[in-house]
Amino acid sequence: MRDDGEISIFAGSTGKGFAEKMCSYLGTSLAKSEVITFSEGNTYVKAGETVRDKDVYLVQPIGLDPNNEFVEILFWMDAFKRASANSVTAIIPYFSYAKADKKDEPRVSIRARVCAECIELAGADRIVTMDLHSPQIQGFFKKPVDHLFALPVICEYIKGLKLENMIVVSPDAGFAKQARKYADYLGVSVAIGDKTRKAHDEKAEILEIIGDVKDKTAVIVDDFSLTGGTLANLAKALKEKGANRIIACLSHTLLNEQGVRKIEESPIELLVGTDTVCNSALTASSKIRIVSVAPLFAEAIQRIHSRESLSPLFSHVPEKCNNK
Amino acid sequence: MRDDGEISIFAGSTGKGFAEKMCSYLGTSLAKSEVITFSEGNTYVKAGETVRDKDVYLVQPIGLDPNNEFVEILFWMDAFKRASANSVTAIIPYFSYAKADKKDEPRVSIRARVCAECIELAGADRIVTMDLHSPQIQGFFKKPVDHLFALPVICEYIKGLKLENMIVVSPDAGFAKQARKYADYLGVSVAIGDKTRKAHDEKAEILEIIGDVKDKTAVIVDDFSLTGGTLANLAKALKEKGANRIIACLSHTLLNEQGVRKIEESPIELLVGTDTVCNSALTASSKIRIVSVAPLFAEAIQRIHSRESLSPLFSHVPEKCNNK
Amino acid sequence: MRDDGEISIFAGSTGKGFAEKMCSYLGTSLAKSEVITFSEGNTYVKAGETVRDKDVYLVQPIGLDPNNEFVEILFWMDAFKRASANSVTAIIPYFSYAKADKKDEPRVSIRARVCAECIELAGADRIVTMDLHSPQIQGFFKKPVDHLFALPVICEYIKGLKLENMIVVSPDAGFAKQARKYADYLGVSVAIGDKTRKAHDEKAEILEIIGDVKDKTAVIVDDFSLTGGTLANLAKALKEKGANRIIACLSHTLLNEQGVRKIEESPIELLVGTDTVCNSALTASSKIRIVSVAPLFAEAIQRIHSRESLSPLFSHVPEKCNNK
Amino acid sequence: MRDDGEISIFAGSTGKGFAEKMCSYLGTSLAKSEVITFSEGNTYVKAGETVRDKDVYLVQPIGLDPNNEFVEILFWMDAFKRASANSVTAIIPYFSYAKADKKDEPRVSIRARVCAECIELAGADRIVTMDLHSPQIQGFFKKPVDHLFALPVICEYIKGLKLENMIVVSPDAGFAKQARKYADYLGVSVAIGDKTRKAHDEKAEILEIIGDVKDKTAVIVDDFSLTGGTLANLAKALKEKGANRIIACLSHTLLNEQGVRKIEESPIELLVGTDTVCNSALTASSKIRIVSVAPLFAEAIQRIHSRESLSPLFSHVPEKCNNK
Amino acid sequence: MRDDGEISIFAGSTGKGFAEKMCSYLGTSLAKSEVITFSEGNTYVKAGETVRDKDVYLVQPIGLDPNNEFVEILFWMDAFKRASANSVTAIIPYFSYAKADKKDEPRVSIRARVCAECIELAGADRIVTMDLHSPQIQGFFKKPVDHLFALPVICEYIKGLKLENMIVVSPDAGFAKQARKYADYLGVSVAIGDKTRKAHDEKAEILEIIGDVKDKTAVIVDDFSLTGGTLANLAKALKEKGANRIIACLSHTLLNEQGVRKIEESPIELLVGTDTVCNSALTASSKIRIVSVAPLFAEAIQRIHSRESLSPLFSHVPEKCNNK
Amino acid sequence: MRDDGEISIFAGSTGKGFAEKMCSYLGTSLAKSEVITFSEGNTYVKAGETVRDKDVYLVQPIGLDPNNEFVEILFWMDAFKRASANSVTAIIPYFSYAKADKKDEPRVSIRARVCAECIELAGADRIVTMDLHSPQIQGFFKKPVDHLFALPVICEYIKGLKLENMIVVSPDAGFAKQARKYADYLGVSVAIGDKTRKAHDEKAEILEIIGDVKDKTAVIVDDFSLTGGTLANLAKALKEKGANRIIACLSHTLLNEQGVRKIEESPIELLVGTDTVCNSALTASSKIRIVSVAPLFAEAIQRIHSRESLSPLFSHVPEKCNNK
Repeated sequence: MRDDGEISIFAGSTGKGFAEKMCSYLGTSLAKSEVITFSEGNTYVKAGETVRDKDVYLVQPIGLDPNNEFVEILFWMDAFKRASANSVTAIIPYFSYAKADKKDEPRVSIRARVCAECIELAGADRIVTMDLHSPQIQGFFKKPVDHLFALPVICEYIKGLKLENMIVVSPDAGFAKQARKYADYLGVSVAIGDKTRKAHDEKAEILEIIGDVKDKTAVIVDDFSLTGGTLANLAKALKEKGANRIIACLSHTLLNEQGVRKIEESPIELLVGTDTVCNSALTASSKIRIVSVAPLFAEAIQRIHSRESLSPLFSHVPEKCNNK
Repeated sequence: MRDDGEISIFAGSTGKGFAEKMCSYLGTSLAKSEVITFSEGNTYVKAGETVRDKDVYLVQPIGLDPNNEFVEILFWMDAFKRASANSVTAIIPYFSYAKADKKDEPRVSIRARVCAECIELAGADRIVTMDLHSPQIQGFFKKPVDHLFALPVICEYIKGLKLENMIVVSPDAGFAKQARKYADYLGVSVAIGDKTRKAHDEKAEILEIIGDVKDKTAVIVDDFSLTGGTLANLAKALKEKGANRIIACLSHTLLNEQGVRKIEESPIELLVGTDTVCNSALTASSKIRIVSVAPLFAEAIQRIHSRESLSPLFSHVPEKCNNK
Repeated sequence: MRDDGEISIFAGSTGKGFAEKMCSYLGTSLAKSEVITFSEGNTYVKAGETVRDKDVYLVQPIGLDPNNEFVEILFWMDAFKRASANSVTAIIPYFSYAKADKKDEPRVSIRARVCAECIELAGADRIVTMDLHSPQIQGFFKKPVDHLFALPVICEYIKGLKLENMIVVSPDAGFAKQARKYADYLGVSVAIGDKTRKAHDEKAEILEIIGDVKDKTAVIVDDFSLTGGTLANLAKALKEKGANRIIACLSHTLLNEQGVRKIEESPIELLVGTDTVCNSALTASSKIRIVSVAPLFAEAIQRIHSRESLSPLFSHVPEKCNNK
Repeated sequence: MRDDGEISIFAGSTGKGFAEKMCSYLGTSLAKSEVITFSEGNTYVKAGETVRDKDVYLVQPIGLDPNNEFVEILFWMDAFKRASANSVTAIIPYFSYAKADKKDEPRVSIRARVCAECIELAGADRIVTMDLHSPQIQGFFKKPVDHLFALPVICEYIKGLKLENMIVVSPDAGFAKQARKYADYLGVSVAIGDKTRKAHDEKAEILEIIGDVKDKTAVIVDDFSLTGGTLANLAKALKEKGANRIIACLSHTLLNEQGVRKIEESPIELLVGTDTVCNSALTASSKIRIVSVAPLFAEAIQRIHSRESLSPLFSHVPEKCNNK
Repeated sequence: MRDDGEISIFAGSTGKGFAEKMCSYLGTSLAKSEVITFSEGNTYVKAGETVRDKDVYLVQPIGLDPNNEFVEILFWMDAFKRASANSVTAIIPYFSYAKADKKDEPRVSIRARVCAECIELAGADRIVTMDLHSPQIQGFFKKPVDHLFALPVICEYIKGLKLENMIVVSPDAGFAKQARKYADYLGVSVAIGDKTRKAHDEKAEILEIIGDVKDKTAVIVDDFSLTGGTLANLAKALKEKGANRIIACLSHTLLNEQGVRKIEESPIELLVGTDTVCNSALTASSKIRIVSVAPLFAEAIQRIHSRESLSPLFSHVPEKCNNK
Repeated sequence: MRDDGEISIFAGSTGKGFAEKMCSYLGTSLAKSEVITFSEGNTYVKAGETVRDKDVYLVQPIGLDPNNEFVEILFWMDAFKRASANSVTAIIPYFSYAKADKKDEPRVSIRARVCAECIELAGADRIVTMDLHSPQIQGFFKKPVDHLFALPVICEYIKGLKLENMIVVSPDAGFAKQARKYADYLGVSVAIGDKTRKAHDEKAEILEIIGDVKDKTAVIVDDFSLTGGTLANLAKALKEKGANRIIACLSHTLLNEQGVRKIEESPIELLVGTDTVCNSALTASSKIRIVSVAPLFAEAIQRIHSRESLSPLFSHVPEKCNNK
């Protein structure tokens, strides 16, 4: 922000909790706003205070109710622009449609690109988000994207547990590159789960573990999980290979009720996730620990505000952003 | 369409019934397609047959589940464009966000414009729709909009009832201009409901009827109704003013369960609506008669296909498009 | 405006008088500029002082010479942008093409949308205007539109006349909603003119008055009038219904010579209009009183400058903006 | 045009005569249309027959009433596009604002670019025009421009006069390159008028003739002339240098009444111009001969229609396009 | 293509050989064109025959001279559009900047998106390419991308070698998913190279082979290689692990002179690559066999021309497209 | 710039020297940056320090390696925008493709427009350049272009030489208008070179000199020269006509080795050029004197920074910008 005006943060209907944590970090209060879903299903948004020439931040994930959340973001962008905001930043802690990032079949849509373009068309000047499914998605946006990582926050939490003899485990080859970054941060080695089919029989899949996990504390890392199936199976296989204790980490804690149950019944001792989506299903399990990345987002906005570089936040998280 | 290729019609998840009626009129069959809502809420669409260089028509209202329906339309447009369709027409029998067509408060969004722009951005080359809330909304689109009217279809149905001594009634001054067109088609006169507040007491509203309805068959016309409240109150007032029988007509039959109940309990004898939205609540009442405008949309497409003017359809409906 | 720079106001060829009144309110002076119409009809514009990084306001109605005025606005926008202005606001007190806001016939243009798009393409970052023919037109613009209302200025003037026993009269159903707002501001009731055709005879129209005007001071309100015909006929009908005195109010005083004559010959005692267009025909009648809305526009700019909300101006006009 | 449909030609309000000559060449008839200038100055256009999926050609110069003509073109483009024309070509025989093609002073507009962009925005898919003031203006358009030349038509007419001992004369250095092309076509040499100021005295300009014109038939060529001043002075100077006879040629015959008078009083024997603008002032002089370029435009459209290259028309004009 | 016109194929300066092979497959001849690089380095392109209303295909890789090749494509697109081509397809067998598809460091450009956008801006209506570095890049384009795969062509060639006891080897985890597709096509299993660092010593990397390659014919697959380093090292490691014979396959054969030498000196017996780039360095080695994918591209164009689906080409290559 | 932040200047790979001279004038230091050309030819750029919310200036000519330089500019624009720069100005001292500014043949590209559009698309908010080949090119850009002139810097240098009896000579009619401006600045008269062909023999061209150069010091002026041919021939002709001494001036000193040799062997005594391109060939001749226009560009930036008008720089160069 080019002036010395205060930070003006608004929350969409499912971003309120997250936004309040950000405001608390920044010592400011959330701007007033109103969202109504009319009986015929239409969404209505209204900013409750003037935004004329202000730099507005709208906090709203595209999470567990993605279409409603996405459409609401479009209307917010338009409302702020038509109310003469100086700039509008969409803070989308989780961007669900990022998974739909390629045309791997004929006659389908690249939905992440469609969403990115519409958000920009509606008026977003900048996007702040976390752990996109693939780094290429930044290129679906024309406007600047500040792409934060949950890694340092999660790793600092893990470090605080003072676990011994850790090894980081990727569920598959696709996440291996990312898993190595967690391993590097923690100063440990890495193992990889590898599903293969036996001969040509399509159904029966064998899950093998590449790397030695015997007597280790296995720290499984992944970007998200819905049904918990992959995590539970992997945990079981790790146990069979002699792993001592099993911890799991997720960037986006999307687990539904079935998923929470699967975790509950699995050998996983503790699942560490973030609060990028607001997920009431999680409370059903005492195994799940949510660390907040809201302070990291807040710190990012403060740096944007004071024109500082965000890149330090990518590899190292400031002390005060951590969850003790 | 510039070639002699056949008409290629696809249906979105809530447009299937309407599209099938169109196909039946045209003697063609609906193109294969797939829509999935994944457990995390994401919508996925896939065209089941090649659209390369074809003129594609996608039938989907933005109706009773507007955000999901709107987002699905965006993905369909993109999927068809990326699959090299020659042109893509969005057939949106009802466009719910058309109601949100102005900025009548500070800091709100003009949501109809946002939706219009995103639909065009996603790839629509033409829009075909019916009875938009205000005619100005055509101007929110840059691409051609073929704007059809339910009036001739509804009026022909009314004429078939051979009612005597009719008068058309508009629920308020806002719809008066439109009501007069119904009256002109039916060759009868018009009355208007007028809500006014007594003195400065804000709450108590009096509903007056401008025009003489005594011993008449009152035909109330409106573009849509959700809760049936306005219709029921108007019917009661008409009865009090001596109206003989009361019929109601709606372009878009959005009535929810409460609305259907209100109609059921009201002095309204018969409610004639169209099938622009698929509304399961309607079956609860035997008073409600749905006339189909799918043949009219089908006829429009056939004329587009054969490069004929659509304007004759605006004032007069072809015999075969009527509902007997 | 984000800096503390002074306000930089330019006038187009037909906006000079209005702009000067604005400058006088703001205690600033009009920026130097030059407009030439060459002998072959080409329009040439030149800003007479540097606009580099300034927030420029260009005052020019699209009024009684709409095509020349519109094209001049396009050239101004481009000239300011190419001269590196920080932002350019088009102040268009009256936007004549707003009347052409829908496609009510086949094969015509939605001219208001064409003009809106071209003005934005040429470089306008914001538009400030008054009493658009329909509120939907704001949605034809993508950029923010600050839409001011003549209502409080006109009503304050009327109040100053200390008329007794007033009633507000709308010339037709279309303006009824707006007329009620005038009535609310003045704390009086409303009546409506209603033109109907007797039976099926197309020609003979009867003008009826809905509401009781007997012994009242009728205050007719409308957005504009060219030939004065509607006003004169309505006034006559009001007189016949027993109205005591008749006052008329217009947002945009477009009356041509014939119109002024019609007013002069009518039972209208006083016509109150604004100065959104510069109209030399008006001087021919002593019945016409022009109240200036330039202070209201000036106040709007000052609020834009100091980042204040404009919405208070929509319902209430600051003391110093009034015309005594 | 990709189909075998007939050519559909419309005329704007000042392009009617030219369009009719084109239709006569093509053996087709002009499409029905309506243009109204309302009493408040607004322009209204309406196509009188269906254009659905047709390739439409709109004939309208931006000539002696440039702002009205330009705005009318914008509305035509929009009307055709909204009526679902397949493609729209703007045939602008003379494009007056082409003269405003650079920013040769601070804080002015590049008006030719503004016009070009607006015409494209409004819907033009192709532009056909003649003898733009500078060839760079084609680059102001993003859409294809078919740029025709009056040269072969004018030169064929000159050839038909069977003049002896010709020399082509450019009025100044700026047109020298173009004059040489006329000279090449006619197989003669070229002379150049050169205005210089004596010493530092700013006022007194001397017109010199570079090249030997003694006993020659001087054929002055230029793209346009308004007041005839340059032509008359040059003719006088040529006479003084011993030129025998003097002929003048203009691509665009914009001469106003004063200009026609100047030509009449000058030693110019014959002025050959084209009909790219409709100019009633020309009839006042018997010295002026108008050759029609409408057949050349018609031939261009026919070639566009049959997908043939236009480039042969740039250097050589078909026999049947000539004016005998 | 909507008409029955013939296929019109042009070649850029480095696409000539490839385009000629395509033309030979299609039984047509290459359209005439001219490309000049002027002495000051400017690139000039000119189509040698009319393209008016034609569907033009421009064949040009962005390969070993990427900036010149990319800029040339921009100029071609513009030239075809300005010459009124009906549609322009850029056939880019190799798109070098696809590697630059993410912002993995602060303050760098997503160069693949920049190139994609410029190519579309310059006029491309469709892109046909092969084996993009990541599938997300399709989403950088707004226009349809037909994305072909070298896999079936390469695999058919490998099958023709009738090798026994094959195993497909991916050089690293990143290409593992792709390697499995090759293995599936060939009906064999897969192994993966995995580079890891010993302890925290950053330099010393160990290359391990996951999977059993003993006595197998190892078929290494990758999308491209420049210096041959990875391939040579992997081949050595495979030999050490007991592999019998070693074959390598590359989608894009970019090997420079050093790379060719490395292959020559390695245990690799045969390197199978495609002709998507024109690479004169390859002739230095008799180990390198180039199979042409030009027939596959030609077949794709034929299907586009006859409005057939391209998807069959993604998994299976037509007999006549193979290289015997 | 709207804030009081310092000026942030970056250099592209061939703009380093020029940018350093600018920084030295401004008393600031060049921002850190990195440009790599990878072995496969790809260009990579990275800003070495934060640009968040800064006003960035990128200095890079499109000069003797135009395609690489142009593509690098595109990547720089994108990198700065994605790194959240507030504004990005491309300082392009020489814009080589400006020569390609028209479609003077069928089926070619208007390459200057293509480059202009891509530079804007990639993110440039403003362009600063010098002596474009034609003034119309400013109109190819939509964003503001600050167009500087070498004339005052060159003329001040010439004045410093205290030459007697000067005459300015334009090499042809095309540059005559420009030459007169040099003559006006120096207060002397002008002569023009004129190449004509004898009869219809295409080859043999005669170079004539219009104007009297006998005993004069001829100062030839031109915008650029590659091979020096025109200059050398003109010098020879001037000598033959009796010119005493011959000086040449070029805005852009593109001379290649052959060109430098030609100058060396010609009667030209001194060639004064600017440093808009970095040209190592020039050092081979002691006749060539390079005056720097970097101070003029630096002064321009300072004025942009302090929101002053640039127009004074067009006609008069500040003392401190001169080269003594």
